[in-house]
Order: sequence, then C-alpha cells, then structure tokens
Amino acid sequence: MMRTAADIRRMNSFAVVRAIHANGGASRRELVDITGLSFATVAAICTKLLELGVIAEVARKRAPAGRPTATLSLNPEHGFLLGVDIAETYVHVEAFDAALEPISSTQYDIDTHERSPDQVVERVKSAIAAERARHQGRALLGVGVSAPGQVDQVGGTSVFAPNWDWHDVPLRDMLADSVDAPLFLDNPLKSLAIAEMWAHPERRGQDFVVLNLGTGVGAGIAIGGRVVRGRMNSAGEWGHMVIVADGRACRCGSRGCVEAYVGAPGILQTLREAYPDSPLLHGDDQTATIAALAAAADDGDPAALDVIERTSHYLGIATASIVNLLNPDIVLLGSWVAELLGKHLLDRARTHLQAHALAVPMAAVAFELQHPRGNSVSLGSATFALEGYLDSVPDGTTDPETTPRRRTVG
Amino acid sequence: MMRTAADIRRMNSFAVVRAIHANGGASRRELVDITGLSFATVAAICTKLLELGVIAEVARKRAPAGRPTATLSLNPEHGFLLGVDIAETYVHVEAFDAALEPISSTQYDIDTHERSPDQVVERVKSAIAAERARHQGRALLGVGVSAPGQVDQVGGTSVFAPNWDWHDVPLRDMLADSVDAPLFLDNPLKSLAIAEMWAHPERRGQDFVVLNLGTGVGAGIAIGGRVVRGRMNSAGEWGHMVIVADGRACRCGSRGCVEAYVGAPGILQTLREAYPDSPLLHGDDQTATIAALAAAADDGDPAALDVIERTSHYLGIATASIVNLLNPDIVLLGSWVAELLGKHLLDRARTHLQAHALAVPMAAVAFELQHPRGNSVSLGSATFALEGYLDSVPDGTTDPETTPRRRTVG
Ligand SMILES: [Zn+2]
Ligand SMILES: [Zn+2]
Repeated sequence: MMRTAADIRRMNSFAVVRAIHANGGASRRELVDITGLSFATVAAICTKLLELGVIAEVARKRAPAGRPTATLSLNPEHGFLLGVDIAETYVHVEAFDAALEPISSTQYDIDTHERSPDQVVERVKSAIAAERARHQGRALLGVGVSAPGQVDQVGGTSVFAPNWDWHDVPLRDMLADSVDAPLFLDNPLKSLAIAEMWAHPERRGQDFVVLNLGTGVGAGIAIGGRVVRGRMNSAGEWGHMVIVADGRACRCGSRGCVEAYVGAPGILQTLREAYPDSPLLHGDDQTATIAALAAAADDGDPAALDVIERTSHYLGIATASIVNLLNPDIVLLGSWVAELLGKHLLDRARTHLQAHALAVPMAAVAFELQHPRGNSVSLGSATFALEGYLDSVPDGTTDPETTPRRRTVG
Repeated sequence: MMRTAADIRRMNSFAVVRAIHANGGASRRELVDITGLSFATVAAICTKLLELGVIAEVARKRAPAGRPTATLSLNPEHGFLLGVDIAETYVHVEAFDAALEPISSTQYDIDTHERSPDQVVERVKSAIAAERARHQGRALLGVGVSAPGQVDQVGGTSVFAPNWDWHDVPLRDMLADSVDAPLFLDNPLKSLAIAEMWAHPERRGQDFVVLNLGTGVGAGIAIGGRVVRGRMNSAGEWGHMVIVADGRACRCGSRGCVEAYVGAPGILQTLREAYPDSPLLHGDDQTATIAALAAAADDGDPAALDVIERTSHYLGIATASIVNLLNPDIVLLGSWVAELLGKHLLDRARTHLQAHALAVPMAAVAFELQHPRGNSVSLGSATFALEGYLDSVPDGTTDPETTPRRRTVG
C-alpha cells in the first residue's frame, strides 16, 4: 500500500519527462521550477535519461551571466510506441515517436457480427502488423492497448466488456505473440485522462474530467494530478449513472443510465423514436448515422437539430452531476461522437449544464471540446507504454525525493 | 501550487498524530511501519510532540531483546477542542479532549423562522458559551465549525447556504469575539470525511464516501487518503446530482436532484403525497416526522415502510451513481436521518444499489451505516481544529521527508 523508494524515483522520472514533454523542451533549471524537485535530483535524472537516449540536448543558450544552458527535449529518434484503441466499432492502431508525436495510423472497422475475442484480436493483430511493417528497423519501446469496459491492467485481462459480453478475456496473452515489446492494457477512460495530462502541463495541477463520447460513454477523471482508478480500476463509469429513474433500458442491465441517452446507440434510439422514417438513419450503423446527423445539422435540418437538442439535454444534466460532485476545473468532451457532433452539442449542453449545476462549481468550470493530436485514446495508450518503458530503466538517482503536490490532506 | 517543505513537515506531523490516534497508541517503531517515514523523522516529530504535551508516553514494555519500547498516545490532558455542527435544524457544539474523545455537548434547535445570520450566530454563540463554561480552566486549543452549503474555508465565510438563502456571510468574523482560540470553518461533507479518516486507520488507504443524510444531503469523499475538495471547496454535492430528469423541484433551482427525494424534506414530501392524512406527519417538523416514521416502521406500519421503501429506491439509485463513478472501497450513511432511519433504509437501499451498480464496483464496495463516537460532524470539525493547532507548532524536523502514498500517477 505504501510507496517504495523505487516508486518515488519512478514518479520523479515521470515528472521530469512529462515536464520536458508538456513544455516542448526545458532546461534543468526550468525543470526544477516546474517539478519542485531539487537541482541535484533533476540533474541525476537528466543524466540517466540522456545516457539512455530518451531525451536529447537540442539547444544551448548563454545566460546573461554564467554558464550556457541546455534545452532538453524528448528524443523522437529513440524508438517508437504503438497506441491501440480497441473501440466497439473499430480498431485504431497509431504509431508515435518517442516524443509522443503521431507518425502513422491504421484503422479497421469491427463488424457488428464479428465480436468474439478471437475475431477482435485478429483485427488488432492485423492492424499492429501493418504499423510494425511501416516502421521496420526502428526499436519498438512498448505497446499500449485500450479495451472497452472493465479492464484488469495488472493481470492484462478484459474483465467485462458489456457490449460484447466478454468475460475475463486474457487480451495481453492473446496479443503477446504479435508484439515483441512490453504490452500495457487499460481502458479508454484512463487513456484519455493520461493523454490529457501529458499534453497539457497545466492539467497536472487541476482536477479534470474527460467525457468519452462513443458507443459507450464514460469519464476519465484526474484529481490532484492523479488518475482516479478506484478499488478495482473501474472508476469513471459515468455512463451508468442514472439520470432518469426507471428510464430507458441500458445494456448494463440497469435503467435510465446516461449511456442509454448519450451513447451513440442512445442517440440513434432518440432519432428513431422521434423520426422513425428519417433518411438520416443508417440501420444500426452508428458511425454513418452520427455522421449523417452532423452533416444535416450543419445544413440546419430541423429533425437533426431536434435530436441534438434532446441529446444535449441529457448530456448537460449528466455533466452537471459530475460538476456538482467533483467541482472540477475543466470538463472536456472527447472521442468520436464528440469529434463528429461536438460543435453542435457543446453550447446546447452548456445551457442545460447551467440549469442543473450549482452556481459555485458552475462558475469555476470550463466546459470544452478536447482537441487531441491524433487519436487521444491511442495517444493515452502509447503514453502508458512510454511510462512502462521509463519504469523499466533505472533513473540514476538513489535518494528518493518525492514530487511535491499542491494539496495536503484534510 | 507546489507543496513546500513546511507543508511536507506538517503532513508528516499529521501522519504521526493520526497514526497514534487511529491505533489507540503506538510505539515509534510501529509508527515507522504505519507511516512509512524514516525512524529519524518519526523520532524527531515525537520528541517535539512530547515537548509540546500533545502526546504522552503511556506505557513501556521490554522487548524480548533490547531496550524497552514506549507506547505513545495523544494526551487528553493537553487541552480541549470544540466541534460545532451548524445544521439546518439545530446547532450542536461538542467538546472533545485533545485525544478527540467526546466529553460533553450542547444542542439547540434552530427555529424555521429564525434563520438570519445574526439569529443563527446567536444560537451558536450561546452553545459555545455553555460548553466553555463547563470546561473552565482548561486550555481551548481550537474551534472547528461546520456550516451547511458552500463554504470558503480560507476566507472563513459561508458563500451560499441554499436553505437559508445566505450569501457571503463572514461566519468566522462574526464568531471571533466569542472564542479566544483559532477558528476553522468548513462544511459538513469535509468534516465527515476527515472524521472517518481519523477514526479508522484503514480509511487512509481507501477510497471512501460518507453520505450525509440530513435536511440537505451530500457526500464526503476521500480518494487515496485525501479529502476531495475540488476547485472551490464545493466538491461533494451529491445531493444535487439529477436522478429524475425533469423531476421534483429542488431548492437549488434545478429539478430531479437526489436531495429532493432523499433529504428530510423530500422524505416528508413523499409521505405527504402518498398519505396526505398520515398521523406520522408533524407539519414541517422534519425531526419529529422522521422520528415518527422510524418508530412506526419499528412497529411494521405499512405506510411508514412504504415511504421508507420509496426513499430507499432513490437512495439506492443515487448510491449506484457514485459507486459506478468512483469505484470506492466503502460507502457509509451518516448524519441524523441515517441515525433515525438507517437500519430501515440500509438493506432496502442495497437492493436498489445492486440493481443499478455495475458488477465489478458493486462486488468491491461495502455499504454500511456510519457509527460515529459522538456527533460525527462535530468530531470532524474538532479534528480540523486539532490539525490547525498542530499546524501552528513546529514539528521538530528539518528534513522534509514526504509521507509515502499507496498509488502512483497513471
Ligand atoms: Zn447502464
Ligand atoms: Zn438540487
């Protein structure tokens, strides 16, 4: 339960690498200011990371008085990472260089009728193979995999994926023979939160929530610089908070969940119930229907705008619940439904959020679309892999000095 | 934003005092094991706390080999603390010795029609004066005050108390002339969480939620050993999460909030709507009506049991939302409605919780009644005062060694 000295050293390494990454390069002195670590600790970590090739000196500038100062950056040449987003309708594998910049990606649809573990894993393996082939000769540092639903990140299994009725699928073992690098498994909520934390330096001092709007919906939550996991790594199931007691049946077995209204199938249901003959309906094809809704809304189509308004109502209410409960600095809308419909949803949902949130937390929260570089779930997964890689190498310090945090207990 | 060395020293002092308190006494060696701090740091802190009289050596036992080992306890003789619970229907002032054991209390009702800041503050002052008079000659170390609604704990003001329509009431200043000791203000949700953390050593490694069931309802939340405050100290407003979209009007201005169904006035409304002529109704007197409901339920009265079942339905749904979102180790029901109705609510609410929570977080969570020693909000407030007192004295160490935590980022 307690943190060991090794944990603390690893956290310090992470803090340094994150600070370098988030600031697009930094000097040792700047790293001391950003991380709150001592100069000696920062210098030792940097020496080790330079030795390993994880970071590189990219520029030297002469200070007004004294020695020249080197700017350190992540070294993109050090190798590459794969970030795998197993969503419910597609598999997206994205390659990132060791500075976490996206370099290429492969995406395959998952057919509604090909959802057995073997079938999905085959798709994933194909996409990984395609990306590996593109980067032959480069060192693969690690693979991060995000799978929907409940994930045991330690055991590497998909504990329960409700939409596929998967139970205890040993994903890491099934994928092991296609990747000769460490594989890290988690779910998209944690990936979104970690991606946001690495991409934006100010997030480390904030409480924030990334709402994942896809087939399923959920929340990546970070409080005080840490991703909230809960006891069984299942925290973030915002999609299964009840907003309509005894409302629509949800695939989780409960009724009236957020997801039943705001998840892509819920939006389709709203459209189908209100406009059963709508030309926007593409059967059960979520992506095509959501894309058609977005295009029609762009053209001012009243039916599309009505469905978006109804969805915004539920989204605003459900966002208010999390704003009231956690009083976060920022709530972001992410994932593919947000990418397609976000600009139509955001302001409408904000109106309903305002009507349901208390004044104090409402005044404090920013409510925005997430703007990821590349697929944010893939980025987050690749980030886990980078953290895992950093974890596997010693950091060069012997004295565990803990990264300061902004809040104290109590 | 960063923690200073002084913050870290204070946290270490807290960790030692908490460990001594929570374990009912401990040796220095045991404190090293419990806190994860070095022996040198623990020894220096203990020396300072002994000097100050905050702790005392209560026993010495000879180890099988080697020097005798002293057991350290909080020193009840060091002075006393007052914990003030300003609720919406009463003011409860409880005196605790410096080992946080309750020693006496005074409670006054607040009349429905006497809710101006001046009127309520007069009640509080009277109750404080009564308790002070009982303990003349003892040193008052500090006063902790809990006020309902949004509280600015730094500025010492009640930002907004919805039930009383208070805005920016400078409570700390108004109470200053009646207490010649430091006064710490916060709201009951934070008090409940901190009381739970001090009273039960295992809580420090848990994610837990104390649901405050009173006139208003809310959640004291602790994650990874820290009370969740949010950006403006307003985290925990579980009572204003929507569980019935467009449902009952809530006093916050929204509709369908948890509080509108589960708060004491909501329970009265359920009773009144279903049984308008019920003899259990005592007008707007919440305490009398809830007590009558509890007594009738003890006797198997069908109307009382029906109202309790309806309330349990909403309570179970709203608990499921927090279980799904946070995946906590434990959810506790506390405050006066839980004390009166808890034994009737708990198992019924658990049934609805099970129907609405996902399997993984449901299997992980314990759902229980809180069993405080004394008034738990008063205890938590007194604890803030004790922490504030400890904060005001140097801890004797110079080397800031941070208390290890169980979880790392990511
Ligand atoms: Zn559900
Ligand atoms: Zn409300």
